[in-house]
Amino acid sequence: MAFDLEQVRPFFEPRSVAVLGASNDTTKFGGRITQNLIKDGFKGTIYPVNRSEKEVLGLTAYPALAALPDAPELVLVTIPAASVPGGISEAVAVKAKAAVVFAAGFAEAGDKGLKLQQEVTAHLKDSGLRMIGPNCLGVRNMHFPVNAATGAVPPVAGPISMLTQSGSFGNAAAAAFRDMGVGFANYASIGNMLDISHAELIHWCGADKNTSAITIFAEGIKDIDTLLDAIREVSPKKPIVILKAGRSPLGQRAALSHTSSLATDGRVVSDLLREAGATVVTSMEELFDTSAAFARANGLLPKSRRTAIFTVAGGAGVVASDHCYDEKLELPFLEEKLASWRPQLPLFAGLGNPVDVTGQTKRELFGPVFEAVANEVDSVIAVALGLDIPEYGAAVVKTAKTKPVLCCMVSPNNEKLFAENGVANFHSVDRAVRSMRHLVDRGTAKLAMRERGTSLAARPLASGVHGEAASKAYLAAYGLPVTREAEAKSAEEAASAAEKIGYPVALKVSSAEVAHKSDRSGVMLGLADATAVTAAYGEMTKRFPDAPVLIQEMVAPGLELIVGGQRMAGTGPVVMIGIGGVFTEVLDDVVFCRAAATREAVIEAIGRLRAQRLLDGYRGQPAINRGAVADIAVALSGVLAGNPAITEVDLNPVIAHPDRVVIVDALIKVE
Amino acid sequence: MAFDLEQVRPFFEPRSVAVLGASNDTTKFGGRITQNLIKDGFKGTIYPVNRSEKEVLGLTAYPALAALPDAPELVLVTIPAASVPGGISEAVAVKAKAAVVFAAGFAEAGDKGLKLQQEVTAHLKDSGLRMIGPNCLGVRNMHFPVNAATGAVPPVAGPISMLTQSGSFGNAAAAAFRDMGVGFANYASIGNMLDISHAELIHWCGADKNTSAITIFAEGIKDIDTLLDAIREVSPKKPIVILKAGRSPLGQRAALSHTSSLATDGRVVSDLLREAGATVVTSMEELFDTSAAFARANGLLPKSRRTAIFTVAGGAGVVASDHCYDEKLELPFLEEKLASWRPQLPLFAGLGNPVDVTGQTKRELFGPVFEAVANEVDSVIAVALGLDIPEYGAAVVKTAKTKPVLCCMVSPNNEKLFAENGVANFHSVDRAVRSMRHLVDRGTAKLAMRERGTSLAARPLASGVHGEAASKAYLAAYGLPVTREAEAKSAEEAASAAEKIGYPVALKVSSAEVAHKSDRSGVMLGLADATAVTAAYGEMTKRFPDAPVLIQEMVAPGLELIVGGQRMAGTGPVVMIGIGGVFTEVLDDVVFCRAAATREAVIEAIGRLRAQRLLDGYRGQPAINRGAVADIAVALSGVLAGNPAITEVDLNPVIAHPDRVVIVDALIKVE
Repeated sequence: MAFDLEQVRPFFEPRSVAVLGASNDTTKFGGRITQNLIKDGFKGTIYPVNRSEKEVLGLTAYPALAALPDAPELVLVTIPAASVPGGISEAVAVKAKAAVVFAAGFAEAGDKGLKLQQEVTAHLKDSGLRMIGPNCLGVRNMHFPVNAATGAVPPVAGPISMLTQSGSFGNAAAAAFRDMGVGFANYASIGNMLDISHAELIHWCGADKNTSAITIFAEGIKDIDTLLDAIREVSPKKPIVILKAGRSPLGQRAALSHTSSLATDGRVVSDLLREAGATVVTSMEELFDTSAAFARANGLLPKSRRTAIFTVAGGAGVVASDHCYDEKLELPFLEEKLASWRPQLPLFAGLGNPVDVTGQTKRELFGPVFEAVANEVDSVIAVALGLDIPEYGAAVVKTAKTKPVLCCMVSPNNEKLFAENGVANFHSVDRAVRSMRHLVDRGTAKLAMRERGTSLAARPLASGVHGEAASKAYLAAYGLPVTREAEAKSAEEAASAAEKIGYPVALKVSSAEVAHKSDRSGVMLGLADATAVTAAYGEMTKRFPDAPVLIQEMVAPGLELIVGGQRMAGTGPVVMIGIGGVFTEVLDDVVFCRAAATREAVIEAIGRLRAQRLLDGYRGQPAINRGAVADIAVALSGVLAGNPAITEVDLNPVIAHPDRVVIVDALIKVE
Repeated sequence: MAFDLEQVRPFFEPRSVAVLGASNDTTKFGGRITQNLIKDGFKGTIYPVNRSEKEVLGLTAYPALAALPDAPELVLVTIPAASVPGGISEAVAVKAKAAVVFAAGFAEAGDKGLKLQQEVTAHLKDSGLRMIGPNCLGVRNMHFPVNAATGAVPPVAGPISMLTQSGSFGNAAAAAFRDMGVGFANYASIGNMLDISHAELIHWCGADKNTSAITIFAEGIKDIDTLLDAIREVSPKKPIVILKAGRSPLGQRAALSHTSSLATDGRVVSDLLREAGATVVTSMEELFDTSAAFARANGLLPKSRRTAIFTVAGGAGVVASDHCYDEKLELPFLEEKLASWRPQLPLFAGLGNPVDVTGQTKRELFGPVFEAVANEVDSVIAVALGLDIPEYGAAVVKTAKTKPVLCCMVSPNNEKLFAENGVANFHSVDRAVRSMRHLVDRGTAKLAMRERGTSLAARPLASGVHGEAASKAYLAAYGLPVTREAEAKSAEEAASAAEKIGYPVALKVSSAEVAHKSDRSGVMLGLADATAVTAAYGEMTKRFPDAPVLIQEMVAPGLELIVGGQRMAGTGPVVMIGIGGVFTEVLDDVVFCRAAATREAVIEAIGRLRAQRLLDGYRGQPAINRGAVADIAVALSGVLAGNPAITEVDLNPVIAHPDRVVIVDALIKVE
């Protein structure tokens, strides 16, 4: 989808702005917004609209939008919710291009609010007017500049563009970034997202030359596909850091109450955002820290997981090492590489990694030793707690120009130096290491645009639940690897099928109505010859008189996986991959990909399963064929994407070996 | 062990202090320390000791400790490492009670340093002089006051006592607490812990009336037993928050290099500290936040996990809910309880939980609604980002006097109010919720002193590795439940044993030399009668000609657990409990208790296994008998504690059912 920047431009670079509800009283919302526009240096025309005043805050006021000398590009609708539909209708009538609606009291406020929202929607339809809000705190471009927002904490100009559904979250971000010395480029509080949502704004920020990192707080997702597409397109160029609220059942209950957002499975959403290329975080602090780290890194990213901890505080170095272990960063041991420095350093300096030169090292050595350390790795975590050594600070600033350096320094002079020179600093090592992990994850990922997978052409399948044989036959037609098997309606057919398949075989009741076959004695294994098959056939037809019987090859024991497919509210068709049994059911160790998925996305997702050791070969077992597992998930995702009537697919188990991976049981539900 | 406070008092409440190495040059260490003593208001006598000066910073100086008019209680040894043994010898000679040694360059600095350290140790032996250090930044008591420390960040007086091996960690703590408006009571940077270690200082802080929370940073542990005893004794009275560095292999490597600390298994240490009653954390930020929360709570603790999120920021409320879910806090839904307030609140207010009154609520309602919410729960998390409503702040301050309230407010006026009124505030909801979880964990734990378990009297067992039969017989003598079984040396003996045990039986090769019996065809299961047993006997003695055979009852399939016992460097004898197979080996889902353990400690530890659902009955299985599992671990811990020669015990599997839990295989190693 080609994205039309001109649809969003009037919000961030308007030539003229009208304030509907402007006031001379700056304790009122319309007054405050008008004042913000004026005092924060908007260079275009400001049209205050006020029914009774001739002048507002020194500017000529107009009684209605229709009375303006010229169509305003952007209308700031600062009037109460009940009047908003009328205001929007006026804005449409004068051919304004964009409107921001601040008032709360729409869909989140019961039937009456919902009705107002529907009226607004009706006015917007086919109008050419685009809208941000309602229930928001406005938009701001620090570089243009235009301040069409209200917020308790005045942000400074900088490289971060923040898109937030919660206005107050924006306040917290502004405060956090201010404390870290980083500022905003664009800021958009987007509230209920009645029209414009995250996706279009991501495209805008992607094209904005002042933005180097995009920070997103999302409560609901308006349309997962446009959001994922926007992330796919923009994330190769700029980091997109997202906190999605409502990861958990308690969070989802809260989100439903707060914004009537559709509950989505938090794990699925996280996996999909990640797959599209976003950096997904789980807390406010991680959102702000990671965004600041990206903004400070200014495009520099570590090329590998090899990092070094450089410290003058030994204990903090040990703690930082623990966090590096947690975050799967590598700390190559540098003792030998740094051996030539040993004679000049204090006896009790540690040169492994952490490199702990201690406070007793001669100051002129900080520069060259720091550089020597940085040369051995792809990033550095620099630590000092209390000691404020200028030569250390200078070494950090110098290296940070060519390699990512994140600091944990509690040392006022160096902190000031870092703020002035754009080096990210945190007051505890856990925050520095966690931020570095995000830089490393992005630095070691492929930054080309992530493709969507390929839908496979639909093949007809009747409504209802399809049992093992039918489901596998359907999937086999798509080339998915299933067990060799055949249905049999007599003992003779059974024996002859077994002959073709090769002994030993399994015999199963074959009916979609018999769920949990093995729990219900519907499976007999290891039948060695025709006599055994004949006997088993007799036995099984006694147990389930009306059901056909399935003769199936015996698959050698291997690693049992589950591959599933589902169409989920809010996230569309997804495939799920997990390790069977307790791993999936008790430990929730499953990963998701959007269908249709690429092979690359599936391989990456499999790499996120916690029980990797089982895939790599546990207790002397050989590693399973991950590629073949991925092929099954990719094909299933294509089937799911191409057949909208399929609501659920369960491949359980899929038995994986070093070579062959085969679907042993399957079930398909069609709406 | 009765702890003698008088041994530690001279460090924190000295009547007189001598500075060995005092100087008029305050850029030198001895000058700075003397200056700190003077300017921070020490009321006792200060004796500067300097070979050449008559006066130091306005005080009469003396050429040697021996020249002082009176024995100093505390000697601050500010001279270089090489001179320290002489200084300590002097201090012993004048009968000083306590010494702090600041210099680095001892055990952490190779052979030469180790030799110095040994000399100091020799001087201290039987001397009556107690020592803190070397390699430390000193001690301070903010309330006495005495400042015998150096640190870049001046702390304020308050309720937290900090004990840290890393001096610079103390600087970071001081800065963090300063930012949160909390201060220190006692501060001790204890470096290499050549003499005084965490344990004695914990006792001191436990008795100190100015201390309400104890914050500990530990790199090494000098003696696990005295540390655990100190925690057991003090933690019922005051929270002890510990960060132990070196949790991970990378951290342990770093710790070894930094302080030559003995590597200990981080998981084991954490479990043992927790068992003794400490609040164990994993990061700097968590250490400081949690300590501040305890200090602010001032003894108030939540009585249950039921909490409420009160917010004017909806999005942050959703995120806080996600964190409550992560931290296993309960958010009871309050809609009905608060229904009477509904008419007075904005339509879009949320009264579930989070209670999101929004910024549009009439200000006079903040007080009563906040109180109404607090009445329904045992703690409150109060959130505001940007909005700075005085009535909200006042409501928080009022409630916080009787119930724990932690805040996430970014609102300058209320933040000031909270600092003045001792309410803990954090700038992101994750930090507030995580801190609340620690308050809740302590509030819902039994705060009586945790007992040590009971050692069982030693029974002789020969050196070497004991196989299944011998190991189980040994344990059975202690009352541990093992399978019914008997060794057989002929087919007749086998059949007769089987008869007694009851069919079906298992037959196993019985030899300590045959490890991994089942992998080596050393196990035959489900033998139904004498014929089968006789045949199996013949087969097994063909496979393992020289080994006896064990006839054993068949245990019905159940949940397979592993219970182990080990003597570990640094942590002494411990028992380990895990769920068998991949849970223990791949997922590391195991818990540890110090041996001898109490039943209570073991039950608590079992409750920390991640895969709780398996214990509670998974897929319709009934819950296993946790008590019977605990009984096995308790008894094993008693055996281990009472028999120092036993180095390792492996009970694997222990099969657990709703009623019976039985040891199916066992192995004991004796040194």
